[in-house]
Amino acid sequence: MHPALDHPALPAPGVDWVAGHMPLLHDAFAEVGHLFDGLRIAICLHIEPKTAVMCRLLVRYGATVALTGSPGSTRPDTVTALVAEGVNVHADVDDEGPQIDRVLAIEPHLLLDNGGDLTTALLRRGHGDHFLGGTEETTTGGHVLRARQTPPDFPVVVINDGELKLMVENRYGVGQSVVQGFMNATNLMLPGSRATVVGYGPCGRGVAQTLRQLSARVTVVEIDPYRALEAVMEGFEVSPLAAALPATSLLFLATGARDVLGEAEVALLPDGVVVAGVSHFPHELDQALLGPVESSAAYHRVHRRPDGRRVAVLAGARMINLAAALGNPIEAMDLGLTLQVRSLAAVAAGGLAPGVQPVPSDIDRAVATAFVAARTGVRA
Amino acid sequence: MHPALDHPALPAPGVDWVAGHMPLLHDAFAEVGHLFDGLRIAICLHIEPKTAVMCRLLVRYGATVALTGSPGSTRPDTVTALVAEGVNVHADVDDEGPQIDRVLAIEPHLLLDNGGDLTTALLRRGHGDHFLGGTEETTTGGHVLRARQTPPDFPVVVINDGELKLMVENRYGVGQSVVQGFMNATNLMLPGSRATVVGYGPCGRGVAQTLRQLSARVTVVEIDPYRALEAVMEGFEVSPLAAALPATSLLFLATGARDVLGEAEVALLPDGVVVAGVSHFPHELDQALLGPVESSAAYHRVHRRPDGRRVAVLAGARMINLAAALGNPIEAMDLGLTLQVRSLAAVAAGGLAPGVQPVPSDIDRAVATAFVAARTGVRA
Amino acid sequence: MHPALDHPALPAPGVDWVAGHMPLLHDAFAEVGHLFDGLRIAICLHIEPKTAVMCRLLVRYGATVALTGSPGSTRPDTVTALVAEGVNVHADVDDEGPQIDRVLAIEPHLLLDNGGDLTTALLRRGHGDHFLGGTEETTTGGHVLRARQTPPDFPVVVINDGELKLMVENRYGVGQSVVQGFMNATNLMLPGSRATVVGYGPCGRGVAQTLRQLSARVTVVEIDPYRALEAVMEGFEVSPLAAALPATSLLFLATGARDVLGEAEVALLPDGVVVAGVSHFPHELDQALLGPVESSAAYHRVHRRPDGRRVAVLAGARMINLAAALGNPIEAMDLGLTLQVRSLAAVAAGGLAPGVQPVPSDIDRAVATAFVAARTGVRA
Amino acid sequence: MHPALDHPALPAPGVDWVAGHMPLLHDAFAEVGHLFDGLRIAICLHIEPKTAVMCRLLVRYGATVALTGSPGSTRPDTVTALVAEGVNVHADVDDEGPQIDRVLAIEPHLLLDNGGDLTTALLRRGHGDHFLGGTEETTTGGHVLRARQTPPDFPVVVINDGELKLMVENRYGVGQSVVQGFMNATNLMLPGSRATVVGYGPCGRGVAQTLRQLSARVTVVEIDPYRALEAVMEGFEVSPLAAALPATSLLFLATGARDVLGEAEVALLPDGVVVAGVSHFPHELDQALLGPVESSAAYHRVHRRPDGRRVAVLAGARMINLAAALGNPIEAMDLGLTLQVRSLAAVAAGGLAPGVQPVPSDIDRAVATAFVAARTGVRA
Repeated sequence: MHPALDHPALPAPGVDWVAGHMPLLHDAFAEVGHLFDGLRIAICLHIEPKTAVMCRLLVRYGATVALTGSPGSTRPDTVTALVAEGVNVHADVDDEGPQIDRVLAIEPHLLLDNGGDLTTALLRRGHGDHFLGGTEETTTGGHVLRARQTPPDFPVVVINDGELKLMVENRYGVGQSVVQGFMNATNLMLPGSRATVVGYGPCGRGVAQTLRQLSARVTVVEIDPYRALEAVMEGFEVSPLAAALPATSLLFLATGARDVLGEAEVALLPDGVVVAGVSHFPHELDQALLGPVESSAAYHRVHRRPDGRRVAVLAGARMINLAAALGNPIEAMDLGLTLQVRSLAAVAAGGLAPGVQPVPSDIDRAVATAFVAARTGVRA
Repeated sequence: MHPALDHPALPAPGVDWVAGHMPLLHDAFAEVGHLFDGLRIAICLHIEPKTAVMCRLLVRYGATVALTGSPGSTRPDTVTALVAEGVNVHADVDDEGPQIDRVLAIEPHLLLDNGGDLTTALLRRGHGDHFLGGTEETTTGGHVLRARQTPPDFPVVVINDGELKLMVENRYGVGQSVVQGFMNATNLMLPGSRATVVGYGPCGRGVAQTLRQLSARVTVVEIDPYRALEAVMEGFEVSPLAAALPATSLLFLATGARDVLGEAEVALLPDGVVVAGVSHFPHELDQALLGPVESSAAYHRVHRRPDGRRVAVLAGARMINLAAALGNPIEAMDLGLTLQVRSLAAVAAGGLAPGVQPVPSDIDRAVATAFVAARTGVRA
Repeated sequence: MHPALDHPALPAPGVDWVAGHMPLLHDAFAEVGHLFDGLRIAICLHIEPKTAVMCRLLVRYGATVALTGSPGSTRPDTVTALVAEGVNVHADVDDEGPQIDRVLAIEPHLLLDNGGDLTTALLRRGHGDHFLGGTEETTTGGHVLRARQTPPDFPVVVINDGELKLMVENRYGVGQSVVQGFMNATNLMLPGSRATVVGYGPCGRGVAQTLRQLSARVTVVEIDPYRALEAVMEGFEVSPLAAALPATSLLFLATGARDVLGEAEVALLPDGVVVAGVSHFPHELDQALLGPVESSAAYHRVHRRPDGRRVAVLAGARMINLAAALGNPIEAMDLGLTLQVRSLAAVAAGGLAPGVQPVPSDIDRAVATAFVAARTGVRA
Repeated sequence: MHPALDHPALPAPGVDWVAGHMPLLHDAFAEVGHLFDGLRIAICLHIEPKTAVMCRLLVRYGATVALTGSPGSTRPDTVTALVAEGVNVHADVDDEGPQIDRVLAIEPHLLLDNGGDLTTALLRRGHGDHFLGGTEETTTGGHVLRARQTPPDFPVVVINDGELKLMVENRYGVGQSVVQGFMNATNLMLPGSRATVVGYGPCGRGVAQTLRQLSARVTVVEIDPYRALEAVMEGFEVSPLAAALPATSLLFLATGARDVLGEAEVALLPDGVVVAGVSHFPHELDQALLGPVESSAAYHRVHRRPDGRRVAVLAGARMINLAAALGNPIEAMDLGLTLQVRSLAAVAAGGLAPGVQPVPSDIDRAVATAFVAARTGVRA
């Protein structure tokens, strides 16, 4: 069982396989890895093979690493592999939350955070002069830190700021892996199917385009006029939600908003519709509106509405690319983790001013250039 | 472990889920299912949720069914589900071959065969006057039966003859599921990757198009000039094998031929190439040429060549859509199984002449029409 | 004015430009052109730059050529260029029909025919022992000759038989040039427009795919279930004609049939619809049903229906790729004319049996191979 | 002859046809057209059917219009049509430049400018209290006005600022019309051809995608790493210029920069390459480097290099979508002109502050919404 997902996890390629497809990260360590030698680093992230490659390299380059995972995403085999490498892993897969206190107990020089909890805890408890600063993976964590009355007195680089990572991960990575997850969870055929994608942000757009490329007929629902115009110009059927729902067989929710489907919308769903989530939280649809669960299996629950119509929800409408696929492709993570490591090295080198800030533009640009070179075989 | 595949099987949707997405098959039974009432039917096929739906319906419509599976593809949970429905399943997942004798022991009125073994055995042992005839799923089985000196004295309908099933399964079903299997097995990113597809028959074409639709850069290798011309006109890079290999990151083998890659070709493979099989048998590449296995995991083995270059082979170069995905999509199987059931019903009704023959054209046409209606929501 | 098209012809690239992009034809003459030396050849075809390249080469290789044009397609500047090369052109652009008698007056050794008129006339009047045989471009001409009670006592090779030429010209050439003609005639924007293509044969399919590739939303209407299924699997909206018409902005007629739109269908056309023809004859729609012409310009007439709705017809619903574009692309004609010349050379060499026959398979295969080599830069 | 383009202009649809496909512009006049009643408006723009629709409506809504054209783009038939409508046209097609003084002589209340010349002249000569302000079409004109030491003491709305118009015109309009112009000028076949697009900005991207959609094999050259990364992720071959040139058959120049191809690059061009311009000025390639002109025709000149290789340049490397097609599609112009008219109406209503400024965001958003509604048939 995948912890907290109440369904079996897909067999995943191991850490060695992943490491073999992360050229940017290895180049980064070859160049700046020595800066981590002798430092203590407290880390909070999803513990799975791709992030494990980075943790392993930090240890191999001389850092002491204490690691805690985001609940619900920790893969036990990855934990085992990391412990064998000397990573100090504090992840109890049954726990409710990350083990903040235990990883901060190493008195870190650096933080690598995911959501802002680690940084917030450190700010609350204070830190010694040895502390250098950190990175924060998520946009949400960046918001939390920027919203503080007193800004941090050390540099915090927010990785997700910036178009580069968003484009590679959201537009391409998510589109591909959402459709992969959908196929794994359902075994349904995309050519000739009738799909509706609600929300045409970077993720929704990636999903809509991938579905269409695989010959589904796709309707886009989008209330922002500029995004709707883009969907129109890309050749999608664009329609209000209420008009799109009755003819939908496959419904992808990608708005990131709450309660997009209320009672009125649920009443429009046709019998047999399959609902998949793309957004970070499954809040677009209150599943209590769908009626009792009639049957369930690995990746779906089928609800029966009072009028007899059935609605199948995949993986509790949680992100289907995490639930039934393997998350972001390795190379997309290679780019994101390289931004992390190079930014953290810049913090370690003492070259950044205090405060919450985006990835330094020279790093951002160099990583883009390296990514192009790695994908095309042309070195700049 | 997936029996005989030495790697874990993907969690599959269950029989009920599959049944809910097979409208053509249910319509067929509603119309002609009564013809099976009271008949004994011996069946040989892959025992997995999609074929199970058909077996279950035969029993529900009054037939007595004895079933044996093709070795290596039997899913134990499907067996359990079928036994609970009253299907007489003779499938020992550790066995070497199908249990021909045990299913023929019911003295069947009808055969539903997959590969010709069942029909050949019946012809050898003879049959009583009650015997009506059968169907044969595969092209190969059809060849075997047509090659006999004495043709069968009963009708045998070969389902795979005919463009309809080939198009839906091979061009669309295989293309989608091969790429899905590749993503499951590797977690690699397709956009911007450099793939070579060897063989541009229906399956290779489906794979090449799906890869390109997902933004890989695809080179096609094809020795037949007409198929090569088609690949050129579709915008693919078309190249001789030796010219394509050195720059390939992902290699898909789809010729169906033997020893397509010999020593000379293996010597051209670049370090890190990933090889996936699309053809029925993994005979295009003698893996002994690749050198010793350096590491292996769920879905791959990494070989190390004497010159130091590594070659990763996925699932032993067996069909990656079966090894790391769920085979054909449900709706494609709905079409194929409906051709089976309607043809078998025509045999049961006594309306067909003896001999090996294609699906009756009225059935073929009606199923095409029904498929269009089911996919578009427009009833003819 | 384009003769007989009552609208201005597009400026066309000249014979030299075209000649520079016909490598297959030049290779063919280099190899077999000497067989035409000293022969008299009577030719009927469309006189435009692409066919002119072939006529010019025949003369340059020593043949005496008498040429007559199909009415309505003769370009006066091409005639001038050919006469300057020593081609004996019998084409009066105002004439009603080809000048059969005048070209046969040269007592030809070979015929190169387009529609069967030349061959039929020769069969009627008889021929001397010097006569060797000929080629026929069109499928229709082939039907006429095959329908004769007495087959010709000389070889006639029908070029259009065979998948090769049909694929290159119809699927790719026509699709591209129809959409080009549509854009030239209307200056309308394809992304986001709503188009219906009636008929999903090779031409209709090419048009539908090109429109969709340019981001139009495309509905396909097709009564043949196999073609409809193919359209569904390619991701098109597939719909009955009556359901498709009311929401159509751009209507492409590609069935090749008569009276596809009768009064009932015309009544469903929305205000402002634009109608373009793809089929050989503009017989799918009786334009008298559309009401009086309210306005007209270079490439369109706008009809006003009694209910006030307007219907714009482009170029009298004649093939829009001829009316407002340049017909087939040069390279597609290079392939077709090379099949012509190599087949005519085989006739001249005396190697073919009498009777109407397809292109010899060795020629067909060699031309396919050469085409691939020319497009990929890889010589076999 | 197209004035100043030394080649024949494509026959264009007339003003009435164009007017029939501009719903946004008509809605805008219905709503705000009364604001122009009694005002004098001096206009500088390209005089062709699409802009003519706007001028005609201004007159019909009570404005007095004095119009001068940008040199080289004035269509005489459009001038005739406008004069007949009462527009005061000062456009001598042989003239060197726009007739600034003559249109300013009407003592305008409003300016509608294209390039900044009109506004600059007015600022130089001063204006009375009756003067209200104006609009400026181009980004370049906006730069000129913003660079002045003293900002204008009246509002000037720069239309091209903002993503909306750029997206519709550049990404979609230009891509489609460049390829249309290329096909008109060459009659070459795109499927299977080998094209290089230099520059992956909005225009280059539109061209690259359209070429690929029509089955060309496309290499992108781009020095900006972020744009190069986008091209990689979209599946294009991405390559340095020098590596791309030797294998290129069709070369599209879309950088907007000067001297992108110098002697070293020209030396790499293969025999027979065809060069087309996409950028505003044909400055990327100094055609003197190409050697003497060997032949020329309607839309091309063929140069012969000292080493014998030929280079064909289409329309002097000027924008091929203007030279051999009809410029932007009507609906794209409908959007751009509606932004113009609504912005000019806001100036007329006196609601804007003095100074150079983008389109008011409520107008921008409303036009996006109206465009979506017009393309989808769904009113918000």
